[in-house]
Amino acid sequence: MDWSLVADLAGTFFFAISGCMVATRRGYDIIGSLLLGALTGLGGGIIRDLILGVPPAAFAQPVHLIPPIAAALFVYFLAHGVERFPRTLLLFDAGGLALFCTTGTVTALHAGMNLPGAAILGVTTGVGGGLLRDVVANRDPQLFNPKDLYAVPAIVGASLIAILWSIGRYSALAQLFVAILVFVFRVLSLRFHWHVPRAATTVGDQPQGQ
Amino acid sequence: MDWSLVADLAGTFFFAISGCMVATRRGYDIIGSLLLGALTGLGGGIIRDLILGVPPAAFAQPVHLIPPIAAALFVYFLAHGVERFPRTLLLFDAGGLALFCTTGTVTALHAGMNLPGAAILGVTTGVGGGLLRDVVANRDPQLFNPKDLYAVPAIVGASLIAILWSIGRYSALAQLFVAILVFVFRVLSLRFHWHVPRAATTVGDQPQGQ
Amino acid sequence: MDWSLVADLAGTFFFAISGCMVATRRGYDIIGSLLLGALTGLGGGIIRDLILGVPPAAFAQPVHLIPPIAAALFVYFLAHGVERFPRTLLLFDAGGLALFCTTGTVTALHAGMNLPGAAILGVTTGVGGGLLRDVVANRDPQLFNPKDLYAVPAIVGASLIAILWSIGRYSALAQLFVAILVFVFRVLSLRFHWHVPRAATTVGDQPQGQ
Repeated sequence: MDWSLVADLAGTFFFAISGCMVATRRGYDIIGSLLLGALTGLGGGIIRDLILGVPPAAFAQPVHLIPPIAAALFVYFLAHGVERFPRTLLLFDAGGLALFCTTGTVTALHAGMNLPGAAILGVTTGVGGGLLRDVVANRDPQLFNPKDLYAVPAIVGASLIAILWSIGRYSALAQLFVAILVFVFRVLSLRFHWHVPRAATTVGDQPQGQ
Repeated sequence: MDWSLVADLAGTFFFAISGCMVATRRGYDIIGSLLLGALTGLGGGIIRDLILGVPPAAFAQPVHLIPPIAAALFVYFLAHGVERFPRTLLLFDAGGLALFCTTGTVTALHAGMNLPGAAILGVTTGVGGGLLRDVVANRDPQLFNPKDLYAVPAIVGASLIAILWSIGRYSALAQLFVAILVFVFRVLSLRFHWHVPRAATTVGDQPQGQ
Repeated sequence: MDWSLVADLAGTFFFAISGCMVATRRGYDIIGSLLLGALTGLGGGIIRDLILGVPPAAFAQPVHLIPPIAAALFVYFLAHGVERFPRTLLLFDAGGLALFCTTGTVTALHAGMNLPGAAILGVTTGVGGGLLRDVVANRDPQLFNPKDLYAVPAIVGASLIAILWSIGRYSALAQLFVAILVFVFRVLSLRFHWHVPRAATTVGDQPQGQ
């Protein structure tokens, strides 16, 4: 069984759910939900494949179209109220992030990219779909929310994969552990409001709510 | 005569007009109009070519630069008042959509892509330029307007082309008919306010204006 | 010494600074600053390389990761107050624009692209990073500000490089002069509020502030 394809499809499904949920919140119709879900679920991988110079899997392998369709139907039939979404949306998004930052790094390493480049491309794969989702839905990107440690777990996960690869300890099982670690890190950071310093000392130090 | 190039240039011109009109509404200058028109007119085809892994025609064939320049001049000299734009903008946009969703699918099929992938890439080509236009102009994308059946005609057109291709009935004439069908479908959907269900049953069912 | 790499890294640093400054203004954290700086600094070159069909230098040569990291640290430690940024941000942005519109054109010409295509790709390289910065930070793009001659210096610079190349007068020194010319042109246009006509005669003629 091709575990890397399974991880890719699962990540696509998780991110697609987050895209369909944003579509629901914004009042889009079912087709808009399908399109935003597809962009969110497939966008990170398409960017990854374009940068690697390989045909985007989303188009080359039609099986990638199933998760967005499933996500749009799932959200259409099972969304019971917009007020219950926030936490669920974040959990699905965290699942996509955890899977994509690791599969993205592995795909880049398999394609022969250098270690730092592969880790950065893994982070790009992980955060790219959600960034596209927020940009086209005209929202302030979750990626840049200073109360939220969004990118840090992805950076840690992608770096761990690159390190494991460089010392010859990479395996599908190791990748699964790193993905779980990223997911747990992300969820704990949300639960306990972990955050990092602001972009500038003088501006960030101002006591203003956060 | 290369009909596919003609259709591509005509679609570029129509979409470029829509970009220049948005530029006018937003108060951009003539250079901003040219740039937004070029992005709208050429963006869908550039995304298509990047995904197909071929050199983007917009850069490889300088003739593609003529429609955006013509559109910027056309709008500069002939826009008589911003209040008369909405309908015209939608018509030009519909013309671009009709041409690009069909030429995009055909280009992908010629490049050897599978049928569902080619249809999706045709839809992407059709809606991509307008989505880029709305995203960089900081507007809520027309693509996601729930009162508007924007993507459905493109999905129908791209699917029809893929089906005709698969049963050996594709021809330039058939493509022209499909493009006209998409255009008429899009215009009728605007005229009669056709729409599809919301992204979620419970949320979409609320009686709120629309 | 590889002057073209030096110019590329310097341009990346200048644009990355502008991205980190926008991150500071928007209240992002230090990781958001790093990511927005990297997107701004590397985005134009990545678009250029994708269109040229070569592996993006930002990923292939890890040295490109240094300028964004340096920029995020620079802004973190040296930003003394958000009120003093506007002019500085514009100067760094102008430096990036001047370098990227010329290196982008030269890279495209070296890759064998036609003259108009290369000039347009140079402009795209020059304005692309800043456009991505403004789009993901949910700001109205500086590129489309009608009070501001943002794209014109880049168009002049890219066209000059293409002309020098076509008459066999291109050299690294000539490129440096063109970059300085673009920078000075951009700064003077800001200082003296040069601008071009609006996108449409009738709408643009209305006396409204500007």
